[in-house]
Amino acid sequence: MAEPFPRTPTFSGYNEPCRIEADVFDLEVEGELPSALEGTFYRCGPDPCFPPRLGDDINLNGDGMVMMFRFAAGHVDMRSRYVRTERFRLERAARRALYGAYRNPFTDDPRVAGKDRTTANTNVVYHAGRLLALKEDGLPHELDPDTLETRGRLDYGGKLQSLTATAHPKTDPASGAMISHGYEARGLATREISLQFISPRGELEREDLFLAPYVSMMHDWAVTARHLVFPLMPTTADAERMRRGGPHWVFEPGLDAQIGILRRDADPADLRWYRAPPCGVGHILNAFSEGDRLYVDIFVSERNQFPFIANADGSPFDRAKSTPRLTRWSFDLSRPAPRFEARTLFGEFMEMPAIDPRYQMHPYRHGFCTAVDRSRPLDVAGTLGVGWNTLVHVDVAAGRLDRYYVGEKTTCQEPCFAPRSPDAPEGEGFILAQLTRFEGHLRTEIIVLDAQRLAAGPIATIRVPFRLRAAVHGHWVPRSVLDAARA
Amino acid sequence: MAEPFPRTPTFSGYNEPCRIEADVFDLEVEGELPSALEGTFYRCGPDPCFPPRLGDDINLNGDGMVMMFRFAAGHVDMRSRYVRTERFRLERAARRALYGAYRNPFTDDPRVAGKDRTTANTNVVYHAGRLLALKEDGLPHELDPDTLETRGRLDYGGKLQSLTATAHPKTDPASGAMISHGYEARGLATREISLQFISPRGELEREDLFLAPYVSMMHDWAVTARHLVFPLMPTTADAERMRRGGPHWVFEPGLDAQIGILRRDADPADLRWYRAPPCGVGHILNAFSEGDRLYVDIFVSERNQFPFIANADGSPFDRAKSTPRLTRWSFDLSRPAPRFEARTLFGEFMEMPAIDPRYQMHPYRHGFCTAVDRSRPLDVAGTLGVGWNTLVHVDVAAGRLDRYYVGEKTTCQEPCFAPRSPDAPEGEGFILAQLTRFEGHLRTEIIVLDAQRLAAGPIATIRVPFRLRAAVHGHWVPRSVLDAARA
Repeated sequence: MAEPFPRTPTFSGYNEPCRIEADVFDLEVEGELPSALEGTFYRCGPDPCFPPRLGDDINLNGDGMVMMFRFAAGHVDMRSRYVRTERFRLERAARRALYGAYRNPFTDDPRVAGKDRTTANTNVVYHAGRLLALKEDGLPHELDPDTLETRGRLDYGGKLQSLTATAHPKTDPASGAMISHGYEARGLATREISLQFISPRGELEREDLFLAPYVSMMHDWAVTARHLVFPLMPTTADAERMRRGGPHWVFEPGLDAQIGILRRDADPADLRWYRAPPCGVGHILNAFSEGDRLYVDIFVSERNQFPFIANADGSPFDRAKSTPRLTRWSFDLSRPAPRFEARTLFGEFMEMPAIDPRYQMHPYRHGFCTAVDRSRPLDVAGTLGVGWNTLVHVDVAAGRLDRYYVGEKTTCQEPCFAPRSPDAPEGEGFILAQLTRFEGHLRTEIIVLDAQRLAAGPIATIRVPFRLRAAVHGHWVPRSVLDAARA
Repeated sequence: MAEPFPRTPTFSGYNEPCRIEADVFDLEVEGELPSALEGTFYRCGPDPCFPPRLGDDINLNGDGMVMMFRFAAGHVDMRSRYVRTERFRLERAARRALYGAYRNPFTDDPRVAGKDRTTANTNVVYHAGRLLALKEDGLPHELDPDTLETRGRLDYGGKLQSLTATAHPKTDPASGAMISHGYEARGLATREISLQFISPRGELEREDLFLAPYVSMMHDWAVTARHLVFPLMPTTADAERMRRGGPHWVFEPGLDAQIGILRRDADPADLRWYRAPPCGVGHILNAFSEGDRLYVDIFVSERNQFPFIANADGSPFDRAKSTPRLTRWSFDLSRPAPRFEARTLFGEFMEMPAIDPRYQMHPYRHGFCTAVDRSRPLDVAGTLGVGWNTLVHVDVAAGRLDRYYVGEKTTCQEPCFAPRSPDAPEGEGFILAQLTRFEGHLRTEIIVLDAQRLAAGPIATIRVPFRLRAAVHGHWVPRSVLDAARA
């Protein structure tokens, strides 16, 4: 029998698995889609195929589902497909979950011992004609950008030594090269970090491995035109703990954060580590180098952000201390002492950032993210229990916020920026975001806003005729880029 | 822009278009699926791709969507696909509706003049290794039984003269031959009926054309081991009326019904027409011949059943007079005078019948249908505005009904019978039926009941993770039959 999912918070309401591999042609649109919006909005998120092996689970442990919304001539079509990871194929063949707890192989069914555990469920990135589904605990999976069919695991023709690659590789808008890293590169709870330089044509040009001071959940990182930034927070892994059935991650409030900085053209032996008090580090909005100065705009909290990660000292999860705030780290690399400044740019509860990708790695002004506006009703617990109810445009030059409150009983997800044209000024274009409405029946919408006028509300609202589960990250790929790769 | 559908009853609530071409692996099941249930439950219904060209429409005019539920080893997977009719392809290319009113080509966009209008949206039947999507206004469309990909329009290698084939062909359980007809066989509002004999191997063996007394909406008909029964009701078509923008069908309360009877091995010149007072005729439960006697168990109403069909005398639609009741027509074919008896078997509001297909054309005992139990809340208007709230097992031998009331705010659709095994006694097996629940968010379920114990309620309930639009008809195909065709 095909068992129902447990009705725990991870598997019910907003988080109920969707599991639908869907094609819907010509979605209904209220308002008018801008004619400049020609391209594809790709998203990726966890959507568990089977009820959990251990009775319950955490949200991030679901199978990777990739969704695409293709915009052309004022119309939009959608498709969603699971990534055919080894795990997906093994469990589908067995018609049940064989893998156990999040990132703990010691909880698996023995028949999948040694098999790939990644779900490829965190991000989807387009590079060099390849659409890559990514999760930081395994290799990228390549998908067909049109059909979303899985082509296979990407190890660059067997050249890559690392067993992992981050869900946040960075593409240099100037050269088209992609730079990636993989932590736990040699296997479970190993300290090796792999640094991966991919050419604009998609070849692995160089891989360097180095040892981190400790094994940290380095979900995001930063790349500038000249530097690499590895922010380690004291959320640490330990193989022995896992062997005893414990979790992959524990937050250690007594352990300093460490930020590794390396010139892009240097050897990892030159890595310099900067210490900071224990903190939780989240996503990076952007980072850039100016002379000997390096600036990293990053979401930082006092403690780890995730309710499912325990504190090593046994203290309970503290929502206030886990609030991420956009913080600018400033490094003067000419100084002999490895010290840096941290300044909170905005006090608001914000995260899940996006920028104009043409300004990635460079001085920039415009950022976009989700926020929790506490002056509004917080009647909905969305992704990871956070009631994201507002989309925000962050003007880091003017120190100004422009907001769009998405409405009662509604939650929003990570915004995505699509430039109005290849040569439009920075931040001129559109914000795309997925909403879930909790009225009567759960509904999904994709809203389109003028990126410079968020408060004016959506230009167009796209109705998805079923409830999509929350995705994590996504990107916009202009039609010209997809067409060029096909030619 | 991709216009939203109008919020008229045809396109909202229960009738809101679904439009999702979906694959869902291993649907959640409450209860346990019987291990004997190995095969595929196919269904077909209208699901409009685009907002109507004329501002509103009737439910039956939507594009054909075929759904399959494949049962094996206590699991069930589902898939849904549109039938790629010529109409579907033309409208999809234009990204809008080009065809106008239901079965009136004079309301179409001129660019589709002369193009196939059928939506293939009424039934899906498996015969001779072919899965056929059917609607009575066009040719069958052949689909791949596993992928539901459309293979094309079926005209038996160019041999078929008729432009139409009924959605209710009958397969002889003894020989495997399929017998079909097509009314309006020579085109719009033509009186020709085509009679089509298809061999067990799927070849057109014989086609006879004959003239009906008038052009009638002959949606269903009957075939016994020895006879063919053509029930014409006075719901008639007129090309001139359509040319003036009027409807395809009008009910003429002043015109007699006529029932044509022909031996299967005879020439249509031998057709004999029996007259009956004007009435609405619906689906046929079963029919059989015994010596010179012929029995037809058919749903008959005083007037036409469809609110969207006007009465020629201008009288309003009368729900009471449109109530279908299971009626036995008895013909003594040895008598010179063409008279017959009609006896109401059950007074209940019932329709959408199914039988054990191994007893099709033969004396039988067990039938299944949907019913409206007026002693229960009728808070839901389902298919065609009828609040089907009960599944019924009709024992025609004992004159007994066994019922399952599907619950408040729930509507059920046509049951489907799956025998427990190839040699199980008649009616021993399972009833499958699609439910839509109107609690909070609209939900679809497929329920499985013991066909001989409906009142005991479902053995298993299969949860579909989205709302399917109502289908019209469907069938069960045992795995052994599908496997044999593949081999």
